[in-house]
Amino acid sequence: VIDPTTETRSGSEGEPAIEPIPGGDLFSTPGLRGAAAATGVQPGERLDLAVIVADGVRTAAGVFTRNAVQAAPLRWCRQALQKEARARSIVINSGNANALTGRRGEEDAARMAEHLTARCGGPALVLSTGVIGVPLPIERILPGIDRACGSLSREAGRDVAGAILTTDTTRKTCAVRVSLPELDGPVTIGGVAKGSGMIHPNMATMLAVVATDLPVEADALDAMLRRSVEASFNRISVDGDTSPNDAVLVLAGGRDGVDPLGEGDPRAPRFERALRTVCESLASQIVLDGEGSTRLLRICVEEARTPEEAAIVSEAVARSSLVKTALAGGDPNWGRIVSAAGASGAALDPDELSLDVAGLPVFVRGEPTPVDPTVLKRRFQSSPVRVTLRLGRGEQTHHRVTTDLTQEYVSLNAEYTT
Amino acid sequence: VIDPTTETRSGSEGEPAIEPIPGGDLFSTPGLRGAAAATGVQPGERLDLAVIVADGVRTAAGVFTRNAVQAAPLRWCRQALQKEARARSIVINSGNANALTGRRGEEDAARMAEHLTARCGGPALVLSTGVIGVPLPIERILPGIDRACGSLSREAGRDVAGAILTTDTTRKTCAVRVSLPELDGPVTIGGVAKGSGMIHPNMATMLAVVATDLPVEADALDAMLRRSVEASFNRISVDGDTSPNDAVLVLAGGRDGVDPLGEGDPRAPRFERALRTVCESLASQIVLDGEGSTRLLRICVEEARTPEEAAIVSEAVARSSLVKTALAGGDPNWGRIVSAAGASGAALDPDELSLDVAGLPVFVRGEPTPVDPTVLKRRFQSSPVRVTLRLGRGEQTHHRVTTDLTQEYVSLNAEYTT
Repeated sequence: VIDPTTETRSGSEGEPAIEPIPGGDLFSTPGLRGAAAATGVQPGERLDLAVIVADGVRTAAGVFTRNAVQAAPLRWCRQALQKEARARSIVINSGNANALTGRRGEEDAARMAEHLTARCGGPALVLSTGVIGVPLPIERILPGIDRACGSLSREAGRDVAGAILTTDTTRKTCAVRVSLPELDGPVTIGGVAKGSGMIHPNMATMLAVVATDLPVEADALDAMLRRSVEASFNRISVDGDTSPNDAVLVLAGGRDGVDPLGEGDPRAPRFERALRTVCESLASQIVLDGEGSTRLLRICVEEARTPEEAAIVSEAVARSSLVKTALAGGDPNWGRIVSAAGASGAALDPDELSLDVAGLPVFVRGEPTPVDPTVLKRRFQSSPVRVTLRLGRGEQTHHRVTTDLTQEYVSLNAEYTT
Repeated sequence: VIDPTTETRSGSEGEPAIEPIPGGDLFSTPGLRGAAAATGVQPGERLDLAVIVADGVRTAAGVFTRNAVQAAPLRWCRQALQKEARARSIVINSGNANALTGRRGEEDAARMAEHLTARCGGPALVLSTGVIGVPLPIERILPGIDRACGSLSREAGRDVAGAILTTDTTRKTCAVRVSLPELDGPVTIGGVAKGSGMIHPNMATMLAVVATDLPVEADALDAMLRRSVEASFNRISVDGDTSPNDAVLVLAGGRDGVDPLGEGDPRAPRFERALRTVCESLASQIVLDGEGSTRLLRICVEEARTPEEAAIVSEAVARSSLVKTALAGGDPNWGRIVSAAGASGAALDPDELSLDVAGLPVFVRGEPTPVDPTVLKRRFQSSPVRVTLRLGRGEQTHHRVTTDLTQEYVSLNAEYTT
C-alpha cells in the first residue's frame, strides 16, 4: 500500500526497523479476541456488529470528534474514560450511528456497553457508524452482542474489519512489531479502521481501534495517541468537516513483568513512532478508499509564518471543490490552487507566492512561469500528484492529502438514506 | 424571477414602491451608453469584451474580493478609487481573468484602462473574468476596445450582459425606478452581473456593475454599496470561497440641479433599499444559474448568540458537500445538516438544537421527532427548500442560499481549461 500521508520514515540511524506484519490486523496483538454478527440493521445477512475483547483490563485512551454534535456512544466513551482510563472490551455497530437520537440514544449506548460487560467483561466501550438521526434498533443489537460473544476468536480480523464498514469498498487493517530496549521480544501494535471519502468520510464517520500488548501509563497513552492521530487521520480528514461519530480508541497492556511505559521513558519515542506508523497506514487505506475517487493530491505548504497558517492554507486547498474537480478531470488548472489558498483567510502576499505542480514550477514569487502544457498535463495525471505552495513568509510547513471530486462521489452521496 | 435571497420586502407603509422596469438593464439609467466586441479571447465570434461609458464623470465606488490574491484589474480599480472616487467608463473582458499574471498583468490592466480613457474619456475602470494564470492577449483586447468605442449606444444591454459571461447560461440584468422626496421624477438604478455556481462561482468570478442617475456623495455611495453587497451577493456566495476577480462597481450621478445624496440625508434609506433590491435581483439571477444545479436550499439560522455565530453556522451548512449531494438526490437526510452545523466551529449545545425541514420539525431541542418519511421526502423535493436551524443560544439570525451539488457540476468543472 502506498502511504500518501508520509514520504519518509523518520527514525535514528541503526535503530531496529518497525516491522510490518504481512496480513496482520488488530488481533495480531496478543491477548485479544473478537467476533462479528449480522443484526439486520444493515441489509441482508451482512455482518454489522463487531466485538473486541481483551483477556484482561487494559489501559485505554480515545480521541473523539471535534464536532460540537457528539453521537451518544462518543459521549458515553468520553465520560467512561474520564472516570477511569481502562477498558477490556469494545462493541461497534454499523448502519446506524446512534447520533442525534436524544435521551433514548444515550440509554441505548449505555445498554450496549452494559450488555457487553455482562457477557464478556468490562469496562466496555461502544462506537457506532451509519445513518444519523434514526433511533437505534436496540432490540436487534443486544442479541447480536450475545451471538458475537459466543464465538470470540483470535481469527476474527477479517470479520471485524468487515462488520464496521458502511460504504467502504475495502477492509482496513494493519499490524507492526517493534523491538524496544530492555524488553524480551518485540511489542505488537495492531489496528482496524473504517472510513472512506475525502471531502469528509461518508456518513461523516471515521473509526479506528488500535491495540498493543505493551503496558503504557494512561497519560502517556493519551498523549501519544493524540500526537499520532494529528499526524495521520487529521491529515486526511479536512479539519472542520468532522462528524458526530469520529473516534479512535487504543488499548494497551497484557504483557506481564514489564514496567508501564511513561512519557519520559527512553523507550517511548520508538514506541510512539510505531503507533504513528499504524495510524498512518490505516489513514492511507481510508484515503485510498475515497468515495468514487480515482486520484490523490498531496498538498505541501511551505514557508508559512506559523504552523496554524500552514494548516489553514493546506485545508483551504484540500477542500476546494474547484481544485478537486480539476484533479478529477486531470486538468492542471493551477490558478485554482493559488486562488483557494488566497481564500483561506491567511494574510498572504501574492507577490511572494510560488507554486510547483508535479515538480514543475508554474508560479514563482507572483509571476507565472512558461511551462509546456503537454508535459504539465501528463505529470498532473499521475497519482498521487504533489503540489508545493511556498508562501514566502516563514519556515513552517504542513501537508495534507485529498482526493478528486468525481461524478461517482455525487451519485454515491445523493441517495444514501433512501 | 423568484428571489431566493429575500422573502419579504422591508419598507415603511405608504411609501412609494420600488418599481421594477420590465426588461430593464444597466442602460435604463439615463446618460449611459455601451457596446460589446468579439476579440477572439473566447472561442469563435462570441462577444467577450464590453465597454460602458457615461456622458460625464460619475461618483464611483467598488467592493472587491476578500481573497488575499487579487487579480491585476482589481488592484488597479482599488488604487484608482482610493486616489479619487470618480469614473466615467468601464471595460470588462471575459475569457481571461488577468489574475496571477505578475507584473505583466498589472501593465495590461493599466493599458486597458488608459486605452479606454483615450478613446471614450475617463477615469476608466477595468474588470476581467476567465482563466487564471494565463497572460492577457492584450494585442487582441486593445483593438476590441477600439471597435466597441466606435459603436456605443443606449441599446447595448443585451450585448454587454452577454459579453461578460463565461460558463453562465443566462444574462443577468435588472433595473428599477424609485421616487424620492423633493425630487422631480423617479431615479433609475440599473445593473448587470456575471456569475454562476454556488460552491463558488465558476472560474471563481462574480462581477456586477450598477449605475444610477442620482448624484451621491462618495462616502455615502461606498457605504450603501457595501451594505447592499453584504445583504445580496454575500448571501449567495459562500464566505471564504472568494476569487481573485470578484467585484461590484457602482457609478452615480448625471442628473442636474440635485444636491448629492449624503449618509444622513432623509432620502438615503429609500434610495439604499432600491440599490439593495437591484443587487438582490442580480444575486438571485446568479444563484438560479448555478452550475449544473437543479434545486435551491435556503438555510435560516436562528437563536444564535452573535451575528458572527449565525453566519458561520449558515456557511458551514451551505458549503457541506454531503448536504448539497443530499439536496441533489432529493434525500431528506437531515442529520447531515445538524452534523455540518456541529462542524462549524461554533460552540453549539446539541441538546438545545432544533431543526425544521420544509416546515416539518424533525429535531427539537436535541430530540428527533417522528415524521412521516413520505411527507418529508415530498416536501424536501420542492425548490427552494427551506431549513431552519435554531441554536437556542440567543436572538441573532442569518440566512444563506445554496444549490445542490450535481454530477453536472462535476463534469462542468473537471475540464474547464482544456
